Amino acid sequence: MAKKISYTLGDICQQTDSVLIGDEDYLIHGLNTLQEAMKGELSFLSNASYQKYLKSSHAGAVILTPDTQDLFDGNKLVTEQPYYVFAQVTRLFVPVFPEEQRVIHSSVIMGDHCHIPDCVSIAANVVIGNRVHFEENVTIGAGCVIGDDVTIGHDSILYPNVTIYNKVTIGSSAIIHSQVVIGSDGFGFAPNTNTKGWQKVHQLGSVHIGHDVEIGAGTTIDRGAINNTIIGNGVKLDNQIQIAHNVEVGENTAIAGATAIAGSAVIGKRCTIAGAVGIIGHITISDDVHITAMTLVTKSIDTPGSYSSGTAMNTTSEWRKNAACFNRLSKQFRKIQK
Amino acid sequence: MAKKISYTLGDICQQTDSVLIGDEDYLIHGLNTLQEAMKGELSFLSNASYQKYLKSSHAGAVILTPDTQDLFDGNKLVTEQPYYVFAQVTRLFVPVFPEEQRVIHSSVIMGDHCHIPDCVSIAANVVIGNRVHFEENVTIGAGCVIGDDVTIGHDSILYPNVTIYNKVTIGSSAIIHSQVVIGSDGFGFAPNTNTKGWQKVHQLGSVHIGHDVEIGAGTTIDRGAINNTIIGNGVKLDNQIQIAHNVEVGENTAIAGATAIAGSAVIGKRCTIAGAVGIIGHITISDDVHITAMTLVTKSIDTPGSYSSGTAMNTTSEWRKNAACFNRLSKQFRKIQK
Amino acid sequence: MAKKISYTLGDICQQTDSVLIGDEDYLIHGLNTLQEAMKGELSFLSNASYQKYLKSSHAGAVILTPDTQDLFDGNKLVTEQPYYVFAQVTRLFVPVFPEEQRVIHSSVIMGDHCHIPDCVSIAANVVIGNRVHFEENVTIGAGCVIGDDVTIGHDSILYPNVTIYNKVTIGSSAIIHSQVVIGSDGFGFAPNTNTKGWQKVHQLGSVHIGHDVEIGAGTTIDRGAINNTIIGNGVKLDNQIQIAHNVEVGENTAIAGATAIAGSAVIGKRCTIAGAVGIIGHITISDDVHITAMTLVTKSIDTPGSYSSGTAMNTTSEWRKNAACFNRLSKQFRKIQK
Repeated sequence: MAKKISYTLGDICQQTDSVLIGDEDYLIHGLNTLQEAMKGELSFLSNASYQKYLKSSHAGAVILTPDTQDLFDGNKLVTEQPYYVFAQVTRLFVPVFPEEQRVIHSSVIMGDHCHIPDCVSIAANVVIGNRVHFEENVTIGAGCVIGDDVTIGHDSILYPNVTIYNKVTIGSSAIIHSQVVIGSDGFGFAPNTNTKGWQKVHQLGSVHIGHDVEIGAGTTIDRGAINNTIIGNGVKLDNQIQIAHNVEVGENTAIAGATAIAGSAVIGKRCTIAGAVGIIGHITISDDVHITAMTLVTKSIDTPGSYSSGTAMNTTSEWRKNAACFNRLSKQFRKIQK
Repeated sequence: MAKKISYTLGDICQQTDSVLIGDEDYLIHGLNTLQEAMKGELSFLSNASYQKYLKSSHAGAVILTPDTQDLFDGNKLVTEQPYYVFAQVTRLFVPVFPEEQRVIHSSVIMGDHCHIPDCVSIAANVVIGNRVHFEENVTIGAGCVIGDDVTIGHDSILYPNVTIYNKVTIGSSAIIHSQVVIGSDGFGFAPNTNTKGWQKVHQLGSVHIGHDVEIGAGTTIDRGAINNTIIGNGVKLDNQIQIAHNVEVGENTAIAGATAIAGSAVIGKRCTIAGAVGIIGHITISDDVHITAMTLVTKSIDTPGSYSSGTAMNTTSEWRKNAACFNRLSKQFRKIQK
Repeated sequence: MAKKISYTLGDICQQTDSVLIGDEDYLIHGLNTLQEAMKGELSFLSNASYQKYLKSSHAGAVILTPDTQDLFDGNKLVTEQPYYVFAQVTRLFVPVFPEEQRVIHSSVIMGDHCHIPDCVSIAANVVIGNRVHFEENVTIGAGCVIGDDVTIGHDSILYPNVTIYNKVTIGSSAIIHSQVVIGSDGFGFAPNTNTKGWQKVHQLGSVHIGHDVEIGAGTTIDRGAINNTIIGNGVKLDNQIQIAHNVEVGENTAIAGATAIAGSAVIGKRCTIAGAVGIIGHITISDDVHITAMTLVTKSIDTPGSYSSGTAMNTTSEWRKNAACFNRLSKQFRKIQK
């Protein structure tokens, strides 16, 4: 079993950006929502709609703002950013198993001329190419395959069954989830007008991933055609995102699951892109843009703000009538104009 | 080669919920469509639009309803649910290879304190963590990686290269296809307003999969932030579905491929959700709801029925004009009102 | 390090469908865009919008058409299809590492009665079933799992961690990227009206992949219910495409990333389907059809041309007003009619 984890509120306060009001020796052994938290559990209030649960919460302590701190009588950690402090606390409660050691499993198969420091952990059945360079504290999960000439920065984690193609570089503190593929060929084909078939454009670039990047399960990032595909520092990618060749994603941009980005699209910094969005190729999105779920970004965006496409949900019977009208919209407009 | 499979119609009738009219010794060696079936093959009529092929079908026997049984002169199996009986029959024709044995391959790497009964099959290069608990007749395909403290119920099958993270529980009779990931981190980050970067919210919950669940190739299911992500009994998930943290899917709901469900969405029982649907987070969908393909579910649904969004397909030239009108719709409406 | 690659322009000309104007001994050591190319690098002009970069390009040579050849003073390769010739040249610059040899790694696990010619390369930890048949020059990446009775044609490449189920056949010169799954079960279930649950329709068909097919990372192709799922010769599939059971994709059709195709859809030859498209089941698309990004194909298409659905992007605030009007469209139309 995992070691039982608990901390005093004083400890937790010291390790987060918060001020303690209450008993510094009070023992916290877990985290929970306001509604479900019990004695010994820490909760937080970040979204105003949950304020109704605060008064009656059984939480042993709550993370609150200066504005909400008086609404709860028990122990509290006070901060301007309760969700941020909660995030800091979650780190303390990640289970650490005693058996997790810095070892290279005997089944690992490694090529020549690799640089692997002592303080690296490589699990069973990992296959590593030639001239691979790991920095300290890299952790590689079971079944990962890492191509030739790959570089991975310190404190990065690859979960099991990740595939990294040749020459990809990954920065420090990356978290890469299972079944991710980085460096697969971009989708490049030239029409052969004689045969009506396709001639492959071999993809000669690679992928450069910055520092502090997280990549969700099943996401795929293609290598560039000539130059590199680039994922900036601090970028957070959810599951099953498709990033085509020569895309550039700016620093601290976060992209939700199932979004697909076509080739050579350039996305700015601090953007938040919701799930199932499509972004067409060869366009530019400026910094601080928000895209709502399932939008198709059909052109460049040069002004920060929120953008959308699609229609809102309806009953199918109503929707069908309106969708039929949509397909007569232009004609109807012209008729009205007359 | 696989063993040649054949059954008498009498045998097939006994193993399904049907009544035989015809020769109980007639030998069936395969299944086929009405149009393509030959002597010795069994077919079925379920969709009225295929009735035209019935009269001239060369099928050796056909599964029919009491209403349609008189339309065919040959052998027949009669039932109120022909497609259901056909489904029962398909099970009999799954090839069984003599070499499939209940063995644990010598290359399997297993942690400590695992509970693995004798009648379990684990293929080559599987990596299993500590304290893993399998019930009887579990089958694990080659290259699967199974984390610590995972539980898998009896008669469940994992196809090759599946990844299960720590602490996930899977019920009995599960069928999990290749490249599925269960238990990867939910997409949780708190904005750090000082650095404009993101603080990871470590995902402390897990995933609970019920009994009789099928999960298609490449589907990803994230672990919960605090509590668990929950997939109910009898749920059927197609390929490349993305299920975010703390989603709950009710019993016997079926979801088609490439659908993405955002965090904390709660989906009822017996829903049928078509392909490429998006469901936003923190909403509730009641029981017996149908969602059509590529709909974005933008709000909670509390009434059973069918729901849609989007527009219907058109030629691009017509579509372009109508889409331009859509973006002037509100202004045009106000103009007309005047 | 990889061998340094360089060719004379004369060599390059001989290996492509082009005519050289300039110094046949000029040495080319890399490829680049017009803007970034330096001495010793070869570039191309295919898209008129890049013509402005031609005059001032430092490229050592440029691929041009008879119409544009006079716009550049340096060395040139002349052809009617510059992008096609560029594609031919990229092949010459794929790095070839001296250590790439035709070997079967000692860790490979193989079943009985396989046919594996000498000139085949199988990387570490590959697991191969029984009665598998490879033709010459097949390359299998690390961690791939290949089921029983699979056939793979000559010169085909599987990148690491691909999964091929039983009985799948793959033609010659295929390129299959990591995490692809071919042959997983189609999504087939019959409702059991008594239990309100689902009865699995076991998937008894397989998948047939033609020659010269490329399949992008994370794409999944399900096996047929009774007959086969079929991917024609020369088809190019991008990443994370979902192809359901009994789909047929015609010769030389190219499909971009994140597109999902429902069961029994039949797609013609030479179609180009953009990214994130949805195609519903049991419809037919004729040859030479183009579908724009994120379109939902809701019915059969029998005329070549371009087809679309959806709406164009807008600011969220404007979009919200127009989307609200869309949901009153039918009523408004009737009101106007009166």
